[in-house]
Amino acid sequence: MEFKKGDRIRIEKDGAEYEGIVMPSTTHHIVLKMSNGYNAGISPENANITLLQKAVKAEDVSDTGTSGAKKATKNKLPKVSILSTGGTIASKIDYRTGAVTARFSADDILKAIPELTEIADLSGRAIYNILSENMRTEYWEKLSRAVAEEIKNGADGIIIAHGTDTMMYTAAALAFMVRTPVPIVFVGSQRSADRPSSDNAMNAICAAKVAVSDIAEVCVVMHGSESDDLCDIHRATKVRKMHTSRRDAFRSINSEPIGFVDYLTGEIHTHLEYTKRSSHQLELRGGFEPKCALVKFTPGASPDIISYYLDAGYKGIVIEGTGLGHVSSEWVPMIERATTMNVPVVITSQCLHGRVCDRIYDTGRDMLKAGAIEGEDMLPEVALVKLMWALKLSVDPDTVKKMMTQNIAFEINERSSE
Amino acid sequence: MEFKKGDRIRIEKDGAEYEGIVMPSTTHHIVLKMSNGYNAGISPENANITLLQKAVKAEDVSDTGTSGAKKATKNKLPKVSILSTGGTIASKIDYRTGAVTARFSADDILKAIPELTEIADLSGRAIYNILSENMRTEYWEKLSRAVAEEIKNGADGIIIAHGTDTMMYTAAALAFMVRTPVPIVFVGSQRSADRPSSDNAMNAICAAKVAVSDIAEVCVVMHGSESDDLCDIHRATKVRKMHTSRRDAFRSINSEPIGFVDYLTGEIHTHLEYTKRSSHQLELRGGFEPKCALVKFTPGASPDIISYYLDAGYKGIVIEGTGLGHVSSEWVPMIERATTMNVPVVITSQCLHGRVCDRIYDTGRDMLKAGAIEGEDMLPEVALVKLMWALKLSVDPDTVKKMMTQNIAFEINERSSE
Repeated sequence: MEFKKGDRIRIEKDGAEYEGIVMPSTTHHIVLKMSNGYNAGISPENANITLLQKAVKAEDVSDTGTSGAKKATKNKLPKVSILSTGGTIASKIDYRTGAVTARFSADDILKAIPELTEIADLSGRAIYNILSENMRTEYWEKLSRAVAEEIKNGADGIIIAHGTDTMMYTAAALAFMVRTPVPIVFVGSQRSADRPSSDNAMNAICAAKVAVSDIAEVCVVMHGSESDDLCDIHRATKVRKMHTSRRDAFRSINSEPIGFVDYLTGEIHTHLEYTKRSSHQLELRGGFEPKCALVKFTPGASPDIISYYLDAGYKGIVIEGTGLGHVSSEWVPMIERATTMNVPVVITSQCLHGRVCDRIYDTGRDMLKAGAIEGEDMLPEVALVKLMWALKLSVDPDTVKKMMTQNIAFEINERSSE
Repeated sequence: MEFKKGDRIRIEKDGAEYEGIVMPSTTHHIVLKMSNGYNAGISPENANITLLQKAVKAEDVSDTGTSGAKKATKNKLPKVSILSTGGTIASKIDYRTGAVTARFSADDILKAIPELTEIADLSGRAIYNILSENMRTEYWEKLSRAVAEEIKNGADGIIIAHGTDTMMYTAAALAFMVRTPVPIVFVGSQRSADRPSSDNAMNAICAAKVAVSDIAEVCVVMHGSESDDLCDIHRATKVRKMHTSRRDAFRSINSEPIGFVDYLTGEIHTHLEYTKRSSHQLELRGGFEPKCALVKFTPGASPDIISYYLDAGYKGIVIEGTGLGHVSSEWVPMIERATTMNVPVVITSQCLHGRVCDRIYDTGRDMLKAGAIEGEDMLPEVALVKLMWALKLSVDPDTVKKMMTQNIAFEINERSSE
């Protein structure tokens, strides 16, 4: 049985049946794009294959099926801009090394996932193309400005294709820097598009649903379970990548997700109150001070590390303490030194879940006396991004302290009254 | 209705009934120690209180009920040593500051939780009395030696009362340093004994059950749920404090717990194979090199931090990378510099869950080429403790690399064959 990329075929094997479009494959497996938008990889051994329909244009899988609909409905759909920054959702195999690198444009995403064109009138724009681990503060600023431009130019929603490794940092950055009247949705993929179990199509489709929804917040939309039933909608300042490889790696910490997208029905269900469309005027606020450090405390760790950062001219320090937010007594004088130099020291916890509280035990009280700022229930990574942002808006220690302990972009939940 | 500490009373309030011994209280609530070993705090307003039995000796609550049984059965029970190191389970209010400090001996624990004497023939010994955040490598060594002494002197099990903040580090340290023929059980408390919701009694009782069990491993026994139904038995090298304040803060990561103690029946149920009693001869192995650092990578972070540690004479570095274990490309030459200086660099992930794998993406491959060691599915904190331990046993880079990538104390699970 001969078939080519783009053909629609049926495979019967071991009592199961698979039907879909033949996708490019880098292994000996046949990769099928099935009607649920999901890919399946099937070994051709002992498989019974039936050709159902020849590809319209063998080289262009993406045109199959939806291009007619696209043209007909295009003008009636909400306008959504896909901004690509690199990462797995925008990557393909680098044949030079055998590894996956970021070499793919926003337009390529549209071609690869034609379902997107049924949800929105999409336009793509590559902002930069870097691996997510090479992200830096100046890219956060550049991306924020690009998002603002798209909104000014009439976008009803923004999708940002981003590598998953540092997505939580970039998403938090935009939540602080961009006051938005429309949804800004980060999406990525834990498995690249060439792998049978890739999550890129389903995540992108769910992201598009959120981008045209009423949820005008910066959020992260990724697989919510190991099945292909739903994507969670996480708040940018409460989400964390909690697994190196699972598709449902992203979890909301110290908060429920805003809601989820039911992939089968396309419906959005919400758990939380959220900011509705057009509640805010578009506004860009400040930027990011790169000379801030996140220091994780471990038992016996020397406080000299704080001195190092102070001597190197750092402007702010976030400490990831133990438990309720503790460091050893030895560190207290160093916190005091930082405070004297007007370098804010924000305390968070390596427990990740829960709230820091330095008022119960001696060490914590001494830390507060030395000038440490309690990071409430902020994630350490979010506290770092927020401190970078706050230091660009003000260098006055009291103002920065006030900003760090007040909720600005849902990063701090109010203390429950016990 | 008048009553004193040690009296047995019944409180009827809002349709509920509470019966137990009156405990010291620092608030206006009445604190009752109930027959399930657990404390309840009840506001006296609108409460109907009945005195059931006057305290035998009003000032010594601990003697109530069990002292007769204790004497009769003492010689037939397994010998368990409780070593106290400080921390909440061994703490009371410091009236000087109003905060809780560590000032309590192992004997005090026995007095406060008389049920323990029904489970084992207990002896207490204070090894040191510090706040858990002031723990250091030399304390790990001292504690390991004390544990070995107790085992040599005939202990059938060891309980270590430890502050919860750094318990995971100390437990991992003992797992590497002590080869044990008997259970070594870490236990602590998230709420101090003076609080109505204190978990100290239930945790200690469950810990004692494990100390007399067949599970001859270093483990952590703490509340397994927000209810008072069970305590989980975590492997020392797979456990992490995952909440600042909840009683069920301790979770096994990348592994199930070994099992749990059903608090009501006192029975132990296991999920995993474990090392049985007397499988190993007692052995103390090495110690800990304090000059090791855990560095958490964040976007745009300068690689100069690695230089700082190298120049300061550090012997080993663990990096907490993003995702599968990545740092920015800028960091690669610094990893190479460390390798050239025979300073091992071990890669772990800030995702905590999952396994690092630096073979898929360009950056990871470059990191491996530069000499980085993949930390497999080790927790970053455990990788740090293990590296400290490995560097005391060998300074040969190849030997250290081999030790870091091989499972020694259940810290690494084998790769599943995909």
